[in-house]
Amino acid sequence: MSAAPLRVALLGAGTVGRAVARALLERPAELAPTDGSSLELAGIAVRDVERARAAGLPAGLVTDAPAHLVAAADTDIVVELIGGDEPARTLIAAALQAGKPVVTANKHVLAHHGAELEAIARRTATPLRFEASVGGGIPVLGPLATELAGNRISAVRGIVNGTTNYILSAMTDDGSDYGTVVTAAQAAGYAEADPAGDVEGQDAVNKLVVLARLAFGCWLAPGAVATIAADGPGAGRPGITGVTSADIDAARSAGGVVKLIARARRAGDAGSGPIVADVLPTVVPASSELGRTGGVLNRIEVEAVPVGTVAFSGPGAGGDATSSAVLGDLIAIARGLGSTWAGLPPATAAR
Amino acid sequence: MSAAPLRVALLGAGTVGRAVARALLERPAELAPTDGSSLELAGIAVRDVERARAAGLPAGLVTDAPAHLVAAADTDIVVELIGGDEPARTLIAAALQAGKPVVTANKHVLAHHGAELEAIARRTATPLRFEASVGGGIPVLGPLATELAGNRISAVRGIVNGTTNYILSAMTDDGSDYGTVVTAAQAAGYAEADPAGDVEGQDAVNKLVVLARLAFGCWLAPGAVATIAADGPGAGRPGITGVTSADIDAARSAGGVVKLIARARRAGDAGSGPIVADVLPTVVPASSELGRTGGVLNRIEVEAVPVGTVAFSGPGAGGDATSSAVLGDLIAIARGLGSTWAGLPPATAAR
Repeated sequence: MSAAPLRVALLGAGTVGRAVARALLERPAELAPTDGSSLELAGIAVRDVERARAAGLPAGLVTDAPAHLVAAADTDIVVELIGGDEPARTLIAAALQAGKPVVTANKHVLAHHGAELEAIARRTATPLRFEASVGGGIPVLGPLATELAGNRISAVRGIVNGTTNYILSAMTDDGSDYGTVVTAAQAAGYAEADPAGDVEGQDAVNKLVVLARLAFGCWLAPGAVATIAADGPGAGRPGITGVTSADIDAARSAGGVVKLIARARRAGDAGSGPIVADVLPTVVPASSELGRTGGVLNRIEVEAVPVGTVAFSGPGAGGDATSSAVLGDLIAIARGLGSTWAGLPPATAAR
Repeated sequence: MSAAPLRVALLGAGTVGRAVARALLERPAELAPTDGSSLELAGIAVRDVERARAAGLPAGLVTDAPAHLVAAADTDIVVELIGGDEPARTLIAAALQAGKPVVTANKHVLAHHGAELEAIARRTATPLRFEASVGGGIPVLGPLATELAGNRISAVRGIVNGTTNYILSAMTDDGSDYGTVVTAAQAAGYAEADPAGDVEGQDAVNKLVVLARLAFGCWLAPGAVATIAADGPGAGRPGITGVTSADIDAARSAGGVVKLIARARRAGDAGSGPIVADVLPTVVPASSELGRTGGVLNRIEVEAVPVGTVAFSGPGAGGDATSSAVLGDLIAIARGLGSTWAGLPPATAAR
């Protein structure tokens, strides 16, 4: 059997985008669906064409016109790896409107516009997949939607932001204070020049909103996820920005470590109430699996009936690791598996 | 939308079978696929009808004629939870021959007759799913086939047998010798009256063969998986049957613990050689994730390019946990997702 190749438009050529491009260019046979079709790069939209070419991306594929690439007649699938709000939101929406399946790693756009994008995807019966938006290359959204589909999920929790985990690990290991560690993390490339999205917890909030969509069937409002603790480590300031060496020491003397834990659970005795979600610096036992999840590792735990507690762990960021999830989603679309939420009911409003 | 219910024949009513029956009887709405169809128990084949009725299974559903239940005109899907070789093998083959999808937790039948059953399933285009055969309720086969489909997998390894892990954990914690712990484990229900299949490593071998099918695309011969170490803990005897208190002590003094590790990897420098697989008592660092996987927990690690190392952990046995995987497979079949290997090429002979 043989079919026309599925032509993939790649939007964004950062670390993840370059890893995806490399895979599509260098090992197409390994990524080919078994029906005889294949995945083929249609183009790569970048901000700076000359720089992308100098970095080794094929000159004939790069463009600085992402909207044209999405609209091109020979673009079959769109991979959005630009990140952030606009133009990503509009490009994803345009692709779905045109019936072109979308793969994205963009947790911001999903957390803030997920309900709208899901509505478009359902209306146009166009797949939208986003395994890469949570936990980098760790499979977790697919298992929630498929292997765990027979469960009633009561809670999801985990360490989903590598930057803050690196900073807290370094504060714990070195005894350094927050400001010193952030500066070192920026120098080492583990924190961005403007680290606010990570350290104030919004990146973890966005990922938690995506996890909750799969776990609980609703899109939570990111603004409804608490990031400022009333007491405990870092109280009164968002994310880990208020965590002090004294907080770390106090946790240690109680056998604990401070971790930024994202969690969402059904409230109420019978677990049938509203979803309660927060992203807070939390003392966990140093000997627990979450306590031992150090550096840039991620770990996501799912509590459900009848399965009990299952956990997914691995590298939560990085171009290569995250490209695994993007490639898996591309293959899933080629296989006709539909959206990440395929088989689940449409999302309800948050409750 | 509404469709005729999919009628499920349950073969076997042990701990997993009863948990599956309970779910289908008590929460059909939660398990219903979103296309308007539903899953409905068509019958439950048991060895002792009177005992099953006394145990609370619906009198009208139990039968001691599994072959008739499989063949019945109103059976749409077969769930095989009898375990062991025959009659399970013949019942699964008969269902597939008749075009009735099969869900099974039977690692023995898959490891020993997987190639034959895959051939029948492919010839008749009938789904065969078996997530429950490895790791109880932990999602791992599905993620290998789907979320990790863009990777080249270099190794899978893990702790996949709860009985031996419980015994080794108890020997480590209590300092008791092997025989004492086995007797206690039998009394506590953690080891069977005849524990040979667990303690000699064959249960783990069977699970490793199933894992390798998804990871490497071939059915290994169970007999080709080494279970007797030439040296190290328990050397010269199969599985954990040769592990002594002295082995445990020697491991401890080196900062290690003895675990029964199942592993399969591609040999050769470029990872392109034959698959090498073994199930051996192995000293691992006590502080490692595998070293800390105690009691009846399972942990499976997957090494792959580009993702790196991802891990799946949770309860590897038990009726409720394992029923999660069976229910997930039933829902997957109802959703039209096909076999556990759907989207992967047909298995090759072992190499």
